Amino acid sequence: MTVSDPHALMTELGRRAKAAAALLAQAPSAAKNQALKAQARAIRDQTQTIVAANRLDMEAGQAKQLKAALLDRLMLDSKRIEAMAKGLEEIAALPDPIGRTLAEWSRPNGLRIARIAVPLGVIGIIYESRPNVTADAGGLCLKAGNAAILRGGSESLFSSTAIMTALRQGLDEAGLPADALLMVPSSDRALVGEMLRLSDFIDVIVPRGGKSLIERVIAESRIPLFQHLEGICHTYVDKAADPAMARQVTLNAKMRRTGICGATETLLVDRAGAAVHLAPLVQDLLEAGCEVRGDPATQAIDRRVVAATDEDWTTEYLDAIIAVKTVDGVEGAIRHVNTHGSRHTDAIITEDAHAAERFLALVESAIVLHNASTQFADGAEFGMGAEIGIATGKLHARGPVGVEQLTTYKYVVRGTGQVRPG
Amino acid sequence: MTVSDPHALMTELGRRAKAAAALLAQAPSAAKNQALKAQARAIRDQTQTIVAANRLDMEAGQAKQLKAALLDRLMLDSKRIEAMAKGLEEIAALPDPIGRTLAEWSRPNGLRIARIAVPLGVIGIIYESRPNVTADAGGLCLKAGNAAILRGGSESLFSSTAIMTALRQGLDEAGLPADALLMVPSSDRALVGEMLRLSDFIDVIVPRGGKSLIERVIAESRIPLFQHLEGICHTYVDKAADPAMARQVTLNAKMRRTGICGATETLLVDRAGAAVHLAPLVQDLLEAGCEVRGDPATQAIDRRVVAATDEDWTTEYLDAIIAVKTVDGVEGAIRHVNTHGSRHTDAIITEDAHAAERFLALVESAIVLHNASTQFADGAEFGMGAEIGIATGKLHARGPVGVEQLTTYKYVVRGTGQVRPG
Repeated sequence: MTVSDPHALMTELGRRAKAAAALLAQAPSAAKNQALKAQARAIRDQTQTIVAANRLDMEAGQAKQLKAALLDRLMLDSKRIEAMAKGLEEIAALPDPIGRTLAEWSRPNGLRIARIAVPLGVIGIIYESRPNVTADAGGLCLKAGNAAILRGGSESLFSSTAIMTALRQGLDEAGLPADALLMVPSSDRALVGEMLRLSDFIDVIVPRGGKSLIERVIAESRIPLFQHLEGICHTYVDKAADPAMARQVTLNAKMRRTGICGATETLLVDRAGAAVHLAPLVQDLLEAGCEVRGDPATQAIDRRVVAATDEDWTTEYLDAIIAVKTVDGVEGAIRHVNTHGSRHTDAIITEDAHAAERFLALVESAIVLHNASTQFADGAEFGMGAEIGIATGKLHARGPVGVEQLTTYKYVVRGTGQVRPG
Repeated sequence: MTVSDPHALMTELGRRAKAAAALLAQAPSAAKNQALKAQARAIRDQTQTIVAANRLDMEAGQAKQLKAALLDRLMLDSKRIEAMAKGLEEIAALPDPIGRTLAEWSRPNGLRIARIAVPLGVIGIIYESRPNVTADAGGLCLKAGNAAILRGGSESLFSSTAIMTALRQGLDEAGLPADALLMVPSSDRALVGEMLRLSDFIDVIVPRGGKSLIERVIAESRIPLFQHLEGICHTYVDKAADPAMARQVTLNAKMRRTGICGATETLLVDRAGAAVHLAPLVQDLLEAGCEVRGDPATQAIDRRVVAATDEDWTTEYLDAIIAVKTVDGVEGAIRHVNTHGSRHTDAIITEDAHAAERFLALVESAIVLHNASTQFADGAEFGMGAEIGIATGKLHARGPVGVEQLTTYKYVVRGTGQVRPG
């Protein structure tokens, strides 16, 4: 389906979203929470309609012979719809991030200065087939006082439209502008291009999808992004690792879910501890059905280990495949991660506090963990309630950019061997 | 001067800066402060050399018939060089922003999570003729553990090179990598284009200069920016303003220095208070030598007031010119500022706490002030020690992007009529 004037269409959407955002920025917490709860109710009430719309998408997807994994992501049943509704209620229960005093100080001349949290404005979300993103992302944007323009995948257009109808109804019931949530009404790809240039109206773009989608967004967007291109996550097992913990955490980090961005893609093992750790780690993975691509030391463990190529050190498999390499201690691990990683999430397993601190300080990723699974790279697991995605970009500041604004942050996670269930 | 292979040259600079940044990120506070002090010493010791280099730039500038204002910005004497050295010592005295725990919490499963300040990495700075930016910006980057690649204006190439030599010597004396500060060694404009595409090596670009420079950077950069395009700053005098305060603050906001981004460009006067406020405000400005471009109500005050055109409401004069308009109360002021402003810095003068809170909450700018001069829009005046520029962009977060990361902040400044001296 093509649109006769993509520029005019997107500009009009931008204008409506921006006007709604100005109203939403002033909305009290109670109104936003009331809207989120009304959205949850509307989604529950319209379960049958949403399922019927989803069936149209599923039938079209089957006709187009989409892969089974894609069809599974696309599919909505009453259980998944209930999860969406519950997700909105959980967002309603979070504290309001707007209006918080982030810092406050006085000047010798009597000026009092405060740094106050305000909404970003309009968030553009470009996503692929998962229709539940419509509710999750829409809900998070609303809670933070932002309007959102959503562009879902063409495969899920009927499903997303049905969900969107319920969400907009919830806004309306709570007296908030329905235009705070807008959907790009056509799957015409020219509209994505227009959206990425809509910098007068959209403040941040969040691309959620495969690498090719994100590469396109990075190449074309004139708007700042919350994004990560890949999650080439590492687990490093130090010579001083507790062997049982190393096995438990590594298996979880790779195999709990192989398709998420926080899944470990490369296992690094301290050469000095390889005699202890390497064989059990590799055996666990092989037994769990994971393909192991290893360096010569790893290949010597088991005939099923295939030879890793250079490409394996920079590949995000998102599948039951792992690259395994022996490295020279924590310094070798840091070097490997900073050279081949994607600045996403990396973990060290060790009982040596000094080695742990080196790794946590020097690995340049947004999230670094000690004695815990990389699969914890997730907003809900961080206690943030939910997330709209993981960003590996660094910081943009606002107002005077002094020394403090020339910094960014990272999350340092200290564990005692936790693995993520389910 | 053109360079045979701009891409290779800039890639090599990027590689060196990135390697230096990795070392700098680990440098203890003491080493960074020692380097800043050694840089100050080196600049003082090399005053004669710097002055001589500056003379070459000045002579070339005079031959090119640069404007007097430009030549004044370019000129270095022993007093300005001492100010640069002192600036570096002041940066050394600031607290180290790196390693601070920005937030810290625990999860029910025992995970402890902290958000820690780390450097951005490599900062690219593109500036025009003011050679002192070399020391100011270089010092701020160093304090925050960042490497910097500086690209000064062709007019100041000799001056900047001489300053850079002293700064790199200071790094070396403190045992830090001299490559933490690199200068683009030629004025070939193709190098700027290459720099803006160096996203593998540069984390943030800071353009400092006129609107055309910043427009080019915005159009071409593939790297996040700390920037503002313009400072179309407003002072709004409410009907409930203290008349003496309104006069004092407005005159300072416009006339203290007209060439800085925080200078007020448009004065808004509450229609309901115009009988009290408008005449004295306009007379003060005219007497101070300011050209006044007004709406009909303002023109009625004095024959010297010229008629404002629509363009005046969106013009950053950076000169002794002001646009003056009467508006319908604080709501009219908010509407005007959000429609015509540049999201930089805007002030309300009033004794009415309710009107003040409306303005502070609803004006969308990075800095909003109550009863104080817009000329306070400055890192040093905020107590940040110094600034590398003012950013009007919104926030990029890192790690999981949850509700809290979908927000940005603004500075709310509460005053009692302060004006900025000097």
